[in-house]
Amino acid sequence: MELHGLSLIGFGTGAAHGIELHALHATTGEKLAPTFQAASATEVDRAARLAATAAPVLARLSGAARAKFLRAIATKLEFNIAELTARGTWETALPLGRCQSEVGRTVGQLRLFAEMVERGEWVNARIETAQPDRKPLPKPDHRSMMRPLGPVVVFGASNFPYAFSVAGGDTASAFAAGCPVIVKAHSGHLGTAELVGQLVVEAVRECGLPEGTFSLVFGAGSEIGQALVRHPAVQAVGFTGSRKAGCTLMSVAAARPQPIPVYAEMSSVNPVFILPGAIKARSAEMVDGFQASITLGVGQFCTNPGLLIVQAGAATDAFIAALGAKLAATPPATMLTKGICAAYQHGVSERAKSAGVRVIAQGPSGNAGTASAALFGTEAANFVQCPGLAEEIFGPSTLVIYCRDRAEMLAVAAVSEGQLTATIQAMSYEDIDDLVQVVGGRVGRIVFNGYPTGVEVSHAMVHGGPFPATSDGRSSSVGTRAVERFVRPVCYQSFPDAALPVELRNANPLGIIRLVNGQWTRAVSV
Amino acid sequence: MELHGLSLIGFGTGAAHGIELHALHATTGEKLAPTFQAASATEVDRAARLAATAAPVLARLSGAARAKFLRAIATKLEFNIAELTARGTWETALPLGRCQSEVGRTVGQLRLFAEMVERGEWVNARIETAQPDRKPLPKPDHRSMMRPLGPVVVFGASNFPYAFSVAGGDTASAFAAGCPVIVKAHSGHLGTAELVGQLVVEAVRECGLPEGTFSLVFGAGSEIGQALVRHPAVQAVGFTGSRKAGCTLMSVAAARPQPIPVYAEMSSVNPVFILPGAIKARSAEMVDGFQASITLGVGQFCTNPGLLIVQAGAATDAFIAALGAKLAATPPATMLTKGICAAYQHGVSERAKSAGVRVIAQGPSGNAGTASAALFGTEAANFVQCPGLAEEIFGPSTLVIYCRDRAEMLAVAAVSEGQLTATIQAMSYEDIDDLVQVVGGRVGRIVFNGYPTGVEVSHAMVHGGPFPATSDGRSSSVGTRAVERFVRPVCYQSFPDAALPVELRNANPLGIIRLVNGQWTRAVSV
Repeated sequence: MELHGLSLIGFGTGAAHGIELHALHATTGEKLAPTFQAASATEVDRAARLAATAAPVLARLSGAARAKFLRAIATKLEFNIAELTARGTWETALPLGRCQSEVGRTVGQLRLFAEMVERGEWVNARIETAQPDRKPLPKPDHRSMMRPLGPVVVFGASNFPYAFSVAGGDTASAFAAGCPVIVKAHSGHLGTAELVGQLVVEAVRECGLPEGTFSLVFGAGSEIGQALVRHPAVQAVGFTGSRKAGCTLMSVAAARPQPIPVYAEMSSVNPVFILPGAIKARSAEMVDGFQASITLGVGQFCTNPGLLIVQAGAATDAFIAALGAKLAATPPATMLTKGICAAYQHGVSERAKSAGVRVIAQGPSGNAGTASAALFGTEAANFVQCPGLAEEIFGPSTLVIYCRDRAEMLAVAAVSEGQLTATIQAMSYEDIDDLVQVVGGRVGRIVFNGYPTGVEVSHAMVHGGPFPATSDGRSSSVGTRAVERFVRPVCYQSFPDAALPVELRNANPLGIIRLVNGQWTRAVSV
Repeated sequence: MELHGLSLIGFGTGAAHGIELHALHATTGEKLAPTFQAASATEVDRAARLAATAAPVLARLSGAARAKFLRAIATKLEFNIAELTARGTWETALPLGRCQSEVGRTVGQLRLFAEMVERGEWVNARIETAQPDRKPLPKPDHRSMMRPLGPVVVFGASNFPYAFSVAGGDTASAFAAGCPVIVKAHSGHLGTAELVGQLVVEAVRECGLPEGTFSLVFGAGSEIGQALVRHPAVQAVGFTGSRKAGCTLMSVAAARPQPIPVYAEMSSVNPVFILPGAIKARSAEMVDGFQASITLGVGQFCTNPGLLIVQAGAATDAFIAALGAKLAATPPATMLTKGICAAYQHGVSERAKSAGVRVIAQGPSGNAGTASAALFGTEAANFVQCPGLAEEIFGPSTLVIYCRDRAEMLAVAAVSEGQLTATIQAMSYEDIDDLVQVVGGRVGRIVFNGYPTGVEVSHAMVHGGPFPATSDGRSSSVGTRAVERFVRPVCYQSFPDAALPVELRNANPLGIIRLVNGQWTRAVSV
């Protein structure tokens, strides 16, 4: 595969307009070839118009055809894994093994969505048959199911160059829904983005799908992305990144003449409540577990445990001391970009100066661009008075909050903003009910006796949570629930059978489960 | 039952603070006793705080307990129907029969939600069982289901004083979801609102539910409503009303430190495409049908057919002439409020002056406060150039758009904004596919050979549609899909069985259908 550094606009490419971008080697900082060209306003408009033209064609595609397309992308990623991961490790400093497993995850994700749309049950088909003799008025036949929203703009994330980027979860779920996708490439892995983008375009062509099913645009700063979100053809937005950038996109989308939904996954500190019983029972295991969870991927996971809430005491002190020692001994590692690393170092040094905060442990310093773990401590009374301490420092930094008793622990839980996850480490479930009630209202996923990192791509996963964890806590960006972000229900009244979408026809040709007159059934006729 | 004119704040009442409101007799314009007192900022805050306190209690309530509460409200409405409808006819000028059937619909709606939550399947339960031996990493157990968002603010609608008001669809679906509700009463039926509100409070008490499960506030202007939407305890908003008021609430909600979802049903002209074959086959039936659909409830339905798109020709002219004659002979009737009537008369007189628009028929004028039907005509070429002609005139006004051919008809469809409904009248379904594709992307419900008015409360109904029909086209405000507006998914990882919500436990004690390892099943263990 060859890189050209040009946006992929439908089946064509963008041109050079003077604004250049460079991919950087994450470890050495050197520029990597080729030079990338930012898309022009005209190219953005063209991508959006092509997507609008493709939208009704994709909307009518059978589940089997959508599945074929998703699987074609998956196969191409697998076939080109060596090239994709070689470029990825240069651009992100993520180890080769991590890049390989992330491509595997991306492939699995595409195939899970393929299986889902092929089966067809995800459309939530509902049928109410007519009652012509009902008094006082006859009841007409009503049938409804989920239909695609239209063109979706996806912003690739820096920390998952495959699974949350060009052909990642947002794109896969939008394609599964039947929506065209325009990806704004993340500047942290431009070459990886173009390689994946080329494969998606190949799959579009091979599957005979219309031009505009997919486009990939490069751009410096926020201008191109915002132009996409403002474009009247665009109907929804998927984003993973900072709270600031996500909130800006929310504002831009809300200010459109026609406001559109934004699904932004933004910020989470993933509080972990460690009860005394757990320390008593599993201190050594938890020292290993939290060291790994905090430093995994240099802490660059949205589910990184940023707060450990403990009850003060001798056993807790010993546990935290052991965890601190292990973190202090963890070697530094290169972060995704110089910018992310600089923000982390700044965040850590500011936190060390915060009133009432002490440094418990800090890993060794390393070369420029590398980061070490940092473990801080504060009292619950101080934490609840300083909202700044609840802010995320993206990277391997964790704050231990010492509570005098359960009441203080609940008070800490009660001031928490929306989170992707909360974790409870306890001896048994009997003593966690009060905590579950408080944190359950604020998070997308509650983990019992585990670690927040590690997000399964499955039917039951919820990777979401109330604001500011995401812009829209009613959604998940991982797992098959993610498709629900890009669809809306449409009802067909008194339609002749043959004019209905296949999922709603009497004969139930797909054999899917449907809510027929109030009963879920796979009945072949109604 | 006795009216006090005071807000119902939890189990207490508001006080008199100087700002007074008056219920008016819709036909005579006279003030009806008692004088109503606007809620104070302190009372609004108290209602929201009580709701926040009630929220976790309601969230834990079993489906059976929620069903009991919904049914208690339904029974009380039924028992008091005479008093409710007497007051309603005074305040709204809606005929007694209409008020009675609307109370019946409201009762049925509450019972449908009761049945749904009692059965429990609506929570979309999903289970992925653990695979401890999976390589390279074990797979933990994940289970997810829908959980309530928290306190919901509901704005009563003027045109449905029962079914879309204090105990209407928004309130019923929020209660079903497990959310407390604060209703802002509509100024058009203050007394009816208080009567229904008192019954809801009685039901809260009788069912042993916490104070704050329900409050009802009165307020003049938009101040009280906006204060409610801004309150940090409030987590979602349901609204039915004007585009201007709905968009204001969207802005207020988006500007909160924590943005929240707004479900506003706002504006729809419900285009009807009448193909030549239909006129040939069913002209007389359609004259009756459209006259009834246009003038039903003095045109005060959100699904009122505001645009008839026809192909020009002799048969069409005869059909429109007959419809015009029938509308011209329809007696005037009193609208809901003087303000609504004034806005209608203004809209009709402005439309009559619009360039390229002619008056086809106009009903007789009557007493002050009454309105007659108005039928206008314009050419498709003129319509597509004048966006103002697509704007809703709330009331029995309809614009006929004359197209030269199918291409012009499709062009009219293509410039349509989001709508609640579109209707296609045709000879057979073979010739509607192009229209279905264009209008299907812009509406919540497509009607074949029928009339848009008449919205069934059922599992399959979609009463929604892209902006500006609603603020959020991914939702329905009528039917059981409405509950989805007030919930979000929560995932439980590695939870001990007994600590899980009952819907997610292994033994499936409710016998509900669940997505277990990718298969929908009612299996009693997993």
